[in-house]
Amino acid sequence: MKHNFGAGPCILPQEVFKEAAEAVLDFNGLSILEVSHRHKDFVAVMDEAMDLVKKALNVPSGYSIVYLQGGATLGFTIAALNMMRETKKAGYINTGTWASGAIKEAKKVGVDVNVFASSEDKNFTYIPKNYTIPSGVDYIHFTSNNTIYGTQFKSFPKTDLPLVCDMSSDIFSKEINVADFDLIYAGAQKNLGPAGATLYIVKDEILGKSTSPFLPTYLDLKQHVEKESMYNTPPVFSVYVAMLNLRNLIANGGVKAMEDRNNAKATLLYNEIDSNPLFKGAVETEDRSNMNVTFLLTDESRAAEFDAMWKGAGIVGLPGHRSVGGYRASMYNALPLESVQVLVDVMKEFARKG
Amino acid sequence: MKHNFGAGPCILPQEVFKEAAEAVLDFNGLSILEVSHRHKDFVAVMDEAMDLVKKALNVPSGYSIVYLQGGATLGFTIAALNMMRETKKAGYINTGTWASGAIKEAKKVGVDVNVFASSEDKNFTYIPKNYTIPSGVDYIHFTSNNTIYGTQFKSFPKTDLPLVCDMSSDIFSKEINVADFDLIYAGAQKNLGPAGATLYIVKDEILGKSTSPFLPTYLDLKQHVEKESMYNTPPVFSVYVAMLNLRNLIANGGVKAMEDRNNAKATLLYNEIDSNPLFKGAVETEDRSNMNVTFLLTDESRAAEFDAMWKGAGIVGLPGHRSVGGYRASMYNALPLESVQVLVDVMKEFARKG
Repeated sequence: MKHNFGAGPCILPQEVFKEAAEAVLDFNGLSILEVSHRHKDFVAVMDEAMDLVKKALNVPSGYSIVYLQGGATLGFTIAALNMMRETKKAGYINTGTWASGAIKEAKKVGVDVNVFASSEDKNFTYIPKNYTIPSGVDYIHFTSNNTIYGTQFKSFPKTDLPLVCDMSSDIFSKEINVADFDLIYAGAQKNLGPAGATLYIVKDEILGKSTSPFLPTYLDLKQHVEKESMYNTPPVFSVYVAMLNLRNLIANGGVKAMEDRNNAKATLLYNEIDSNPLFKGAVETEDRSNMNVTFLLTDESRAAEFDAMWKGAGIVGLPGHRSVGGYRASMYNALPLESVQVLVDVMKEFARKG
Repeated sequence: MKHNFGAGPCILPQEVFKEAAEAVLDFNGLSILEVSHRHKDFVAVMDEAMDLVKKALNVPSGYSIVYLQGGATLGFTIAALNMMRETKKAGYINTGTWASGAIKEAKKVGVDVNVFASSEDKNFTYIPKNYTIPSGVDYIHFTSNNTIYGTQFKSFPKTDLPLVCDMSSDIFSKEINVADFDLIYAGAQKNLGPAGATLYIVKDEILGKSTSPFLPTYLDLKQHVEKESMYNTPPVFSVYVAMLNLRNLIANGGVKAMEDRNNAKATLLYNEIDSNPLFKGAVETEDRSNMNVTFLLTDESRAAEFDAMWKGAGIVGLPGHRSVGGYRASMYNALPLESVQVLVDVMKEFARKG
């Protein structure tokens, strides 16, 4: 058995893999891969996939769910285009690679970006605090969890301005108050489903108010909300598996139960990092991510030895992102506590060997 | 057994479904749905998926293959943005819904569109001919096969201008000369693979020459060519299944063999439509599509009777598009001749019953 600590695309529940494989062979007599997206059986899948997001996150009325394609990368552009108003200004928090990408893409479509908080001074090893949210801007944007650096917002920015969040890597991992947001978007390939779908949770009142002179139909959330994610052919299989996964999530206690499990996994691993003299955490303690645990060896010269040990234990996906090095244990919803225990045991054994 | 005449997402080879289902359960020890796109095993898949396109279509040197997301709908925008040059003018042929969509999206990003040929006067039931291709425009755009109406270009526009084609519904169904084109794009969900991937065949010399003031990174083909379709997380499973399907295509004789089979299927069905007094073709004979065969009852009042018969024979996906009515038998590469024979037998039986 392999223990998949990969950062995404990542582990999903084994039952979901099994059900997905079955549907590739037989979904009401056809393969799910050959079913028309207009067929009533798939329309029902899409409807359920949208409804289950509302159920899992207690999405209040006045919000719509949309499944699109293009990942958060296209989401950066879609967010900027759809939230752009009279000032064409926006406030962004820069907490690393993906937040920087969101800033870059907003600028590319003509947003005057005010980066009012950033942790770039310490290589994104913390979450900025004590910032002043600007006034006179169209919206505020932040990235809730920073997959590469291993930091996570423990509380969200408080503002009366429209709030936009790229929640790709921690959505469905803990309870959130959707009413605080005007737009949430998330690539599916962490806690939602396989790569190829991107989720949008949209406050209906933001729709149709863009001031951008360029708004291709595919990038206009209003079109997709009106067509219930069927403006054009959706990523059928990715949406189907997302639906299976959301069913599984709810059957296993929902987001609150996942939050508890994720806290337990994080506590187990961070305790080991803090108590084991051969390891150290890579980021500020108070800003540590429960999804992506980044850590370093205190003696880098022993990397080959440690690497051989965790690989021998069936662990995969542990190297840190190519841009930062070290180690990263991604512990998405579907990663069992037992897998974390295997890693902790390897770390203890590594220390015992001295 | 069902006979899937659906217009897309559509039938793929049964062996491909089987191999795809196996990979959902086990792809080198993990599910293909949880493998990182940066893992060498998936990088190899992406490389093969790109190489097999080149092999299947004899793509000459100087062209690159890219897999993206968003379907041809986002392709309409990507084509316009990447082909826009000094004049910001382009010539489009309007042969129906998808061609009209391409025109609409080009205009939305600032292209001055000259529709120099159109079959709108007869509800898109033919392919325009004897048109004059405009000069002094940046590029020429057309749609090779019109899924909804059932028409298909039998020869392509001849021009020295950059030629762009939405080939979503007939790519890989017949031999083409890629060197005639500067850009070909195609939603995967007909002859390539499941929904969720979009193929681009790009002449390298067009890259980086856009004059659009608006060019988000995800819409810039240069970025994707440079990153070999890995600028951001690709639609992993859709690309994997496309690779399986291309392997299957080549193992079964390649595009030329498919073309021969597709001709045989089309001949069988069109002959029945023309010889059976209860049916008539929906479009000009010389412009009939080999992919999407549209036809009508000569006596519409007998529709319920005919519908019961083909449904009873296990046929699915035969109703015409909701915007045009009638019937549409989509006969993509993977549809066996035997399925067409089943439909023809039903039509003969319908006539025999009088």
